[in-house]
Amino acid sequence: MTDKFIKSKAAVAWGPKQPLAIEEIDVMLPRKGEVLIKVMASGVCHTDAFTLSGEDPEGIFPVVLGHEGGGIVEQVGEGVTSVQVGDHVIPLYTPECGECKFCLSGKTNLCQKIRETQGQGLMPDGTTRFYKDGQPIFHYMGCSTFSEYTVLPEISLAKVNKEAPLEEVCLLGCGVTTGMGAVMNTAKVEEGATVAIFGLGGIGLSAVIGATMAKASRIIAIDINESKFELARKLGATDCINPKDFDKPIQDVIVELTDGGVDYSFECVGNVNLMRSALECCHKGWGESVVIGVAGAGQEISTRPFQLVTGRVWRGSAFGGVKGRTELPDYVERYLAGEFKLSDFITHTMALEDINESFELMHKGESIRTVIHFDK
Amino acid sequence: MTDKFIKSKAAVAWGPKQPLAIEEIDVMLPRKGEVLIKVMASGVCHTDAFTLSGEDPEGIFPVVLGHEGGGIVEQVGEGVTSVQVGDHVIPLYTPECGECKFCLSGKTNLCQKIRETQGQGLMPDGTTRFYKDGQPIFHYMGCSTFSEYTVLPEISLAKVNKEAPLEEVCLLGCGVTTGMGAVMNTAKVEEGATVAIFGLGGIGLSAVIGATMAKASRIIAIDINESKFELARKLGATDCINPKDFDKPIQDVIVELTDGGVDYSFECVGNVNLMRSALECCHKGWGESVVIGVAGAGQEISTRPFQLVTGRVWRGSAFGGVKGRTELPDYVERYLAGEFKLSDFITHTMALEDINESFELMHKGESIRTVIHFDK
Repeated sequence: MTDKFIKSKAAVAWGPKQPLAIEEIDVMLPRKGEVLIKVMASGVCHTDAFTLSGEDPEGIFPVVLGHEGGGIVEQVGEGVTSVQVGDHVIPLYTPECGECKFCLSGKTNLCQKIRETQGQGLMPDGTTRFYKDGQPIFHYMGCSTFSEYTVLPEISLAKVNKEAPLEEVCLLGCGVTTGMGAVMNTAKVEEGATVAIFGLGGIGLSAVIGATMAKASRIIAIDINESKFELARKLGATDCINPKDFDKPIQDVIVELTDGGVDYSFECVGNVNLMRSALECCHKGWGESVVIGVAGAGQEISTRPFQLVTGRVWRGSAFGGVKGRTELPDYVERYLAGEFKLSDFITHTMALEDINESFELMHKGESIRTVIHFDK
Repeated sequence: MTDKFIKSKAAVAWGPKQPLAIEEIDVMLPRKGEVLIKVMASGVCHTDAFTLSGEDPEGIFPVVLGHEGGGIVEQVGEGVTSVQVGDHVIPLYTPECGECKFCLSGKTNLCQKIRETQGQGLMPDGTTRFYKDGQPIFHYMGCSTFSEYTVLPEISLAKVNKEAPLEEVCLLGCGVTTGMGAVMNTAKVEEGATVAIFGLGGIGLSAVIGATMAKASRIIAIDINESKFELARKLGATDCINPKDFDKPIQDVIVELTDGGVDYSFECVGNVNLMRSALECCHKGWGESVVIGVAGAGQEISTRPFQLVTGRVWRGSAFGGVKGRTELPDYVERYLAGEFKLSDFITHTMALEDINESFELMHKGESIRTVIHFDK
């Protein structure tokens, strides 16, 4: 049997540090266990920019970037049972097979079923579904949402309520879930707790929302860009602090401000020095710090072990500890129930043709999230 | 009212790097909230040796060392209600006041009520109870058990079952509880879990016992001194590993041995490189590493933050996370019930007059614990 193809408009990254090229590519129809998605919307995330910059040691080119999408099932491959044509789905860069040691542990969302091929920019069978004039183009984080049509393994799709607007809930495919989930799933912040959040990009602001939903009594938001403070306060931050306003380490400032430190802290930048500050601003005896940000290759975190021996805990979180297929649909329901808003995050929307502009806005710090609308 | 004194035989450390001097000192009778203890037995711990070496930045001299004791209440000061003359007690270097923010949190055993004065070698009222020819001598870790008589705050005493032999359960005053508690209280190792224990001194061997009591399925004991392996196996270790037998990092060896890493690891040495190995030998997604050992002043631990983001947890434990007055008596009951033995740890016993020999045995690696018997 010969594979068939569908034409698709896509933003292709032919190489690092180059603008994305809008191309008509050929997308191979789904093989066994795979699903073809018509992407309706996709956020543009810092991780896309990181890979495009060439700094990502695992970056592979040419590639279709994008991993924060929302779409509709267009066609299903052989054996697919959990979704059908017309279903609304959020692509998952962290799949959930339900069968591997990790899924069965009940202790983590880090399904490893297709990790190896996904890391190589390939589908689980070791091949790609994207071609331009016969030249293969790699997948990205198992999603590649900067294409009108994309193909994913069935286990990489969260089926969500059709009532939810895909151009908003696409943000639950990465940043917003990462921040909210780190607070609610990973740290399990309880009512009345004190919280410090380092960095007020999309993830940090989502962590503020998570802390507000968890009914934290004090939410300290830290950033060197004070233009972020207004929205942080709107979302629930009780204190906004600029480390540049102090002549001592920010952890010392927070420890004084909170009579001994916070119950929980979150590093949402990817800066190893901030990760240390976040740990050391935690309360002796019980404070827990969660690393969310992704640091540059080879960088290390450090602290004196006394920080741990005296009761602080250092942990991390990926995709907010959220299991994509079993738990993400509930995040969509909570959004629909009005528990949190996503519109605050969407500072810009544009057509795929304008996607390079979204990276410029990001680099200038002028956007929280740009959402690409494929029907624009 | 004039303070009264009692004569006491004590091993006094007049200064760092000097042998202890056996002296007849004057011990002031207990003031309000204080208790005079007749010490019956005391273990000699590495921490005593560390302070005596002069390396301890918080070491103060002259001082009566010793913090792993068992004794009998000889006299109580005004207002003391929780113990009475004749009670058997274990001195606590981590007190439990039940009133401070830390005790009330329910999240930690690190009571801070008398931390400041204890750190200065003084009783809570800022004075000492030890004198030699009128010269004050400092307290040590709030215990000073290398004296026939010592004075402690009421909140620093665990009242224990009189049936328990003090010359054995004194070890529950520090090392044994630290190791067992780190496994059972801090990490809460569950039945069937896999465990790696770095360092097979008294604390590491106690951690082996804790893991055995927790019914861990695999207990990997790591030391460069293979003479420790026999006892480790007797106590329940399933695998004994010498890092020198491998030409790759010990964490890689353990990850291979366990198909991905252990569920829990414990660093019982105080070596910051081992602390890193202990973290990195944990299983992706859920492995937790507990720092127990105390590192040298200024030393730092490091790792790539990716280790945490992919689900490992780094925490620490002091006195095994055990609350001294409410939980330690139960450890004594479990000992009496035969759940674990302490005799395995006691390689030597001697009179106070011979105490300097115990440090020599420790430095040569020939002892696990020497217990000083005051009636010898």
